[in-house]
Formats: sequence, C-alpha cells, structure tokens
Amino acid sequence: MSPETTHDLVARLAARLGPGGLLTEESDIAPFAIDWRRLFPGRPACVARPASTAEVADVVRICREAGAALVPQGGNTGLAGGAVPDASGTQVVLSLMRMNAIRAVDPVGLTLTAEAGCVLKAAQDAAADVNRLLPVSFAAEGSAMVGGVIATNAGGLNVVRYGMTRGNVLGLEVVLGDGTVVDGLRALCKDNAGYDWKQLFIGSEGTLGIVTAAVLRLTARPRHVATALLAVPDPQAALRLFTLAQDELGDAIQAFELISGLSLDLVARHGGLRNPLGPAGWYLLVEAASSLPSLREAAEGVLATALEQGDAVDGVLAESSQQAAGLWALREGITEAEAKEGRGVKHDVSVPITAIPAFLEAAGRALAADLPGARANAFGHMGDGNIHYNVLAAPGQTSEAINQLVHGVVEDFGGSISAEHGIGQYRVTELVRHRRPGEIALARRIKAALDPDGLLNPGKVLAR
Amino acid sequence: MSPETTHDLVARLAARLGPGGLLTEESDIAPFAIDWRRLFPGRPACVARPASTAEVADVVRICREAGAALVPQGGNTGLAGGAVPDASGTQVVLSLMRMNAIRAVDPVGLTLTAEAGCVLKAAQDAAADVNRLLPVSFAAEGSAMVGGVIATNAGGLNVVRYGMTRGNVLGLEVVLGDGTVVDGLRALCKDNAGYDWKQLFIGSEGTLGIVTAAVLRLTARPRHVATALLAVPDPQAALRLFTLAQDELGDAIQAFELISGLSLDLVARHGGLRNPLGPAGWYLLVEAASSLPSLREAAEGVLATALEQGDAVDGVLAESSQQAAGLWALREGITEAEAKEGRGVKHDVSVPITAIPAFLEAAGRALAADLPGARANAFGHMGDGNIHYNVLAAPGQTSEAINQLVHGVVEDFGGSISAEHGIGQYRVTELVRHRRPGEIALARRIKAALDPDGLLNPGKVLAR
Repeated sequence: MSPETTHDLVARLAARLGPGGLLTEESDIAPFAIDWRRLFPGRPACVARPASTAEVADVVRICREAGAALVPQGGNTGLAGGAVPDASGTQVVLSLMRMNAIRAVDPVGLTLTAEAGCVLKAAQDAAADVNRLLPVSFAAEGSAMVGGVIATNAGGLNVVRYGMTRGNVLGLEVVLGDGTVVDGLRALCKDNAGYDWKQLFIGSEGTLGIVTAAVLRLTARPRHVATALLAVPDPQAALRLFTLAQDELGDAIQAFELISGLSLDLVARHGGLRNPLGPAGWYLLVEAASSLPSLREAAEGVLATALEQGDAVDGVLAESSQQAAGLWALREGITEAEAKEGRGVKHDVSVPITAIPAFLEAAGRALAADLPGARANAFGHMGDGNIHYNVLAAPGQTSEAINQLVHGVVEDFGGSISAEHGIGQYRVTELVRHRRPGEIALARRIKAALDPDGLLNPGKVLAR
Repeated sequence: MSPETTHDLVARLAARLGPGGLLTEESDIAPFAIDWRRLFPGRPACVARPASTAEVADVVRICREAGAALVPQGGNTGLAGGAVPDASGTQVVLSLMRMNAIRAVDPVGLTLTAEAGCVLKAAQDAAADVNRLLPVSFAAEGSAMVGGVIATNAGGLNVVRYGMTRGNVLGLEVVLGDGTVVDGLRALCKDNAGYDWKQLFIGSEGTLGIVTAAVLRLTARPRHVATALLAVPDPQAALRLFTLAQDELGDAIQAFELISGLSLDLVARHGGLRNPLGPAGWYLLVEAASSLPSLREAAEGVLATALEQGDAVDGVLAESSQQAAGLWALREGITEAEAKEGRGVKHDVSVPITAIPAFLEAAGRALAADLPGARANAFGHMGDGNIHYNVLAAPGQTSEAINQLVHGVVEDFGGSISAEHGIGQYRVTELVRHRRPGEIALARRIKAALDPDGLLNPGKVLAR
C-alpha cells in the first residue's frame, strides 16, 4: 500500500467511526501495537474501535476496498502474538473493546449473551450474580475479552470438567471478510439445522472472520469445593491417582494439575511462598466441586487411599477457602517465579493423558543428552493432557533448538505443539512441521474459501 | 450418467473391492436403498463396502473419475433420509459397515478409538468393560454406527450432562471428496494447533467428507443413579423444577424429560404401560447420577421440596434399577404408541429452555386456531431445550401445513427446526425458509470449497 492509500483509508475510517472511534496518534496506538509479553512489536496504520456490529462491517468493507489487512484484537492477552499487527504500518487493528455490553443473562435457561469486547471477568461476574457459573476461567480473565476468548478457543484450569471455550459457545455473530454479518446468536443447547458454521470461527484466531457477539453456556454453581495438594513420588503415581479420582469423584473433578518439584522450589525461592508439604519429585493440585454434601467425605477418602497405597507420600486437604487460595497461589506463582529464575522457553503441549509419564521421561532424557544444563520447569493440566513443559535454558542454547527438541518428543507421542495458547505468529513455522500435509492443505482450502484476498489477520495460524 | 458409464464404474469398483466388497444384486442392495422409516425410497447403482480407509479413498477416486455421486451410510437409522440414495440409479452407496473395529480403549486416558462402521452399542460396551462411560446414548444405539453418529452429530437422552456427539469427538479421520485421507486421529482433550477442521465434518451428514474413524472421549461411570417421575401442573412449574434441580444437583442431572399427559395416555392405551402417578397435565422424568453417595438424599430433598412448593403434585423416586427401567419404558414407549394412535407429523425442534412454556402455549393456540382437531403429542429433552412437538393430524390436514405452522412458532421463539435429527433430504426446503440468507450463503461457500463437484451426498442438507 502506498502512503497515499493508507492516508485515504485512515480518513475514510475516521469519517465513518467519528471521534473516539479511530486512534492514529503514536501514543494512543502504542498499546495495541505489541503483545503484553512484548515479544511481537508491530506498527499499525491506525486502530479502529467500532461501537457496533454495523460499524465493524463497515470497517471491514472500507479496509477491503483499500486492500488493507485487518488484525482483530480483544484484550490483547494472547501468548502467541495472534492479535498484533506486523511492522509494515499498513495493517488496521480492529479493536472490539467498545462493544462490551452484556446483552442478556438467563439463569433459568443457562445462557449469557455478550458482545466481543466484554471482559471475561465481567461476564463471569454477571453469571455469579444470578448464582450461575460461566465455566471458562484462566489467568488473564480480568483482561481477556469474550471475542478473543472465542477466537482463540481459550482453555484454562477447568477444562477437565467443562471443556474448552468451544464447548461453551452456543451462538455466534460474526462479520466475514467481505463485510457480511452472519447472525447465529441463538440461545440453543441443541441445534442440528445445517452446518454448524460457528465452529469454523472458534479457535481460528480472527483469520476467517471477526467475532462480534456470542451466546455462552452457563452451568450450575457447585456449592461445595474440595481442594487438595498431594506430594507424589513420580508421574506414574500421579496417573494412578487420576484414575482413583475418576472412580471416586467422577466429573466432580474440576482441576487436576501436575506440578514438578522444581516448579515449587522456584515459587518458594522467588515468590516467597512456602510449600506446605515435604520435598517430593512431583505434586498434584486437585480440586473437585459439587452441590452434593458428601463431596468432602469422598475427597478425604481419596486422599486416605492415595496415602495408604503409597501413590501420595504426603497431602493436605484445604480446611477453608483461604487455605485453598493459598494452595492455588503456589500453582499460579510458577510463571512469575520462572521469569525471575532466568530465561525460560515456554511450551504449551499436550499428549494423551496416559502418555504423560513416558513423555516427561523421554523429554527429560532428550534434554540431558542434547542440551546439557537445561532444566525442565514442567507443570500443567494433567487432567486434560496439557503440560507446560517450560525449559530454563543454559547459556548459548537457542529457543529454536529447545522448541525443536521438545516438539519432536511431543510428536513421538502423538501430541500437539499447542494445547491451549494457539498458533498466532509464534508457532506458524512449527505448525507446518508438526501437522500432516493433508491437514495443512485442508486448512489452506478453508482459508481461501472464507478469506480469498487474505486480508483477515494475515500471517497468523498459516504463513502468508 | 449413461448406462455404459455406470456399468464401467461398477466393474471398476468390483475389481478394486473384490468379492463381498461390492453389492449389485437387487435383493442385496434393497436394505441400503431405503431408510428404516421407509419414507425415502431410492435406487443406488451399487453398494460399495470398503474394508479399510485406503479402500474408501479408492472408491471415492473411482466414483469421482466416473462423475458418480456417493452416499455414505452407516447403520441407516437416521430420521431425515440423509443416508439413502436418490432414485436415479446412478448414485453409489458407500457403506462403512465392514470397517467396524474398535482399535483402542484407554480407561486411564479416557479415550476410545473406533472405525466408522462400529455399532455405537459395541463401543459403549467396550467402554463399560473397563468401567468407563461412552456418554453418547440414544434409542437407535444398537444399530447406529460411529461414523453416522458423528456425521449427524447425534443427540439423545444425556445431552443435558454430556453435550452432543460433537463434544465427545477428540480425533477424526476423514476421506475428502478428492480421495485425500486426512488423519487427525489424535487422542487429545486439548489441541489448539491450527484450525479444528474436524468440526466441519461433525454434523455435516456426509456432504463434506467421509468419516472413517474417530477417537471418542470417555468419562467416569457414575456409581449411583436416582430416577424420578413427577406429575407437574404445567410447563412453567416444570421450568421452576429445572432451576431447583440445577441448584441442588447441578451437573449430576443427566436427563430432564418433559412428557405431556397425552403422551402417557397413549402409552397406557396402546402400550399397556400403567402411569404410576395420578392424572396431570404434564410429567417430568428426571435422572441424576454421581459417584458421591449423598446423591439419593439430595434427590429425595428435591422431590420433597417440589411437592411442598406445589410445583409437583405427585412423584415417585425409583427404589431399584428395575423400577427406574419401568419409568424409562413409559418415556421410550411414546413413539410407538403415537404410531398406533394415528398419523403423527413429527417435529424435532428446540427453543431456549426458558421459552419452553411460552412456546408450548403458543403452538397449542396456533394449532387450535388453524388446524382444528389436531392434537399435540409433545415430549422431549427439556433440559436441553429440545421438544419433539409431534402432531396427531386430523383428516385432511397435510404434513406441510402442520410443519409450517409448528416451525413458524419455533422461529418466533428463536428456535431451531432440527435440534438433533439433522436435515438430510427431509428438511432441505424448510432449512432455507428458517435460516438467515447469510447462513445459507456461508454453508454453500463451505460446500463449494470442500466438494466443488457436488459428488458427496448431493441434495442432503443443502438443495442441489
């Protein structure tokens, strides 16, 4: 795009969106130009902030006429650089932040309708106000916005019970790359009338269309919660405890987190948080919830059996919600502690749950053999197979070498190189390496059908 | 297609598939030519029965070269004519029945891998053998096959707890219309690496590709079950009980069925099954399950509160699994009793759960006004908004008139004209009437991208 074209484009957008609808000043657009980890700096032509679906559609049409690429952005909390523009100065960031209304909450029918720019926490709070649960929850929920949560199919802590975001989206409104608005904002749990086209947009990171509003599924809010931290000798014991917990607690399990001994060491060293249990190779943070009053008794039974069988060597069941919060603080402190320890190369991988012990062993062996001095800070959502296998690099070890080593082991176990964070621009090259050619060809066919001119978030998910 | 082309096609398929792989005799192909309700008779050129994914791919290529259309078929239990050929004598039925292996069952990692022709009940049994639950369940499970269950995104009785089939598919292998095999048979609960292309094939009724194998999600098998039948004065009371049950039992609820008084009258009259409760306008069959022992106590509490508040006028909690089976027999006998009563025009609609009482009232009013003498035999899965609003027609009333009336009311409430049975060929015209033009255009764009020559199950879901 020539500077003149860009200049005209900005003028047309300003005319359509009015004051406050378009940001062009360097200082105003700076926060939209880079991701929050500051790994992917970009430079947009401007930041469009439409206040309605009709305005989104017009922004798309105006950009399309100018041949300008669009980068949809919500809370900009992504970890893969999927919501920030490139450095060309020609891309338009389309921020959904002004479309932040909660349009409806139905505690009886168990649905909530929100616009794309609604902060996830605000939607959760609106559900809680009527004694219902919006079951999508993760660390960035105070900033992440509903549209981005859907566009990235966000995961989080409770996937073992409630599934990914995908399973909690009932209806969707999207704007296509030609400016067409497709309205599927139905508050229906069951709807087999034709292709479920909304699935295409969930998790496609704004490369196929722009999510403007959604109907989300609510659930009952369980009355009782049981939270336990267990010290376990090894991941194989953790796996046996997963089966024990399934048998005794079933789908009352809402978190089943595996934490390495090193992870808790780091949290103690850098976060000042004391591990209440004795030293062990691994730990499990397990949480179950139910409205049935015998939950606690059942949880105590699981803990007793685990200790008796030797699959847990120590354990504590929280006596209060404060104690439970203390246990969760250990888990939530890992990322920050890792950053203070040194250079961590993050991985967001998944393998079949049963393969987790073998995966950890194989990855550890490969690291020791090929990257001596590197240390694995492994933790994650064992109950859904998702391990954050972060590697603290030794001097001179490149991120690329570490990525390739870890992802190679993941592939050996039939795993995924991105369990919940998505591809964005961060993993575009690795994706091609680790998915089958037939899958990439199919993805390209889908992209070509929905965005033939390649103006929707180009270079994300699929290389240009 | 000329008779010569068809003749050559059959010869090529026979050569590729060998003895037993191709059926051409009239008597052999007859069962594949018509749906089990015998509403959609067709005439295929032949029935191909490949025994492997490679053979499926070759059948697709051979048909494509001949320009012949393919109609994938599993257990042929569909209710919308989606799996049977037209009457042209040129379409090839592709039966997956010989690909019936269960390739793997993982009770620890909670996955089961099966081929498309595996009967659903066989997969359920394999899960039960290792104390796990395959949570997709519906009346035809003894004949329906995994590939068809996925291609139609089957619903059933336990959607309120476990979701539709879509939510229980972790990995998929499909053959595209050009014969490409796309292998996504990953046993992963979490996988955000690129577009989740498998979602396109789930619920698209064989019009975008052919499902050849899948990895399904298993869950814990709850130890305790509580089943109750309640007599309720009206649907508004039933809705209040849905909220009460959500509060007290949460996602332990695994079925929440609304049954009209007429439905149980028909079951008594034609099925000889006695309703254990007194006469009432409406009934609820509610089932909850959990591994926590206090389930029964909580269920008793719900029943007591319901009676005390007057939202239930009578009720019984099953004392044994036999008694529970007796209550379920009432529910399961409705369809057969309806058939014996007279000509029923079936509807498989959904509306927002909260709108069910108003929908039932509005539909009843519209029937009385416009189709005097017609009687509504309404029942269904209230917990997920799905009502089978079947209409016993008076003499002279056409199915079309009844359909249009019911679907018009459904649309007034933002509902769906097919909650779980799909579109097939049965509802192709009604779909266009009740979905927005933008949705139909998007569906056509998807179809054109994946099946540009229109050889995959033409005329199903979308009109030719």
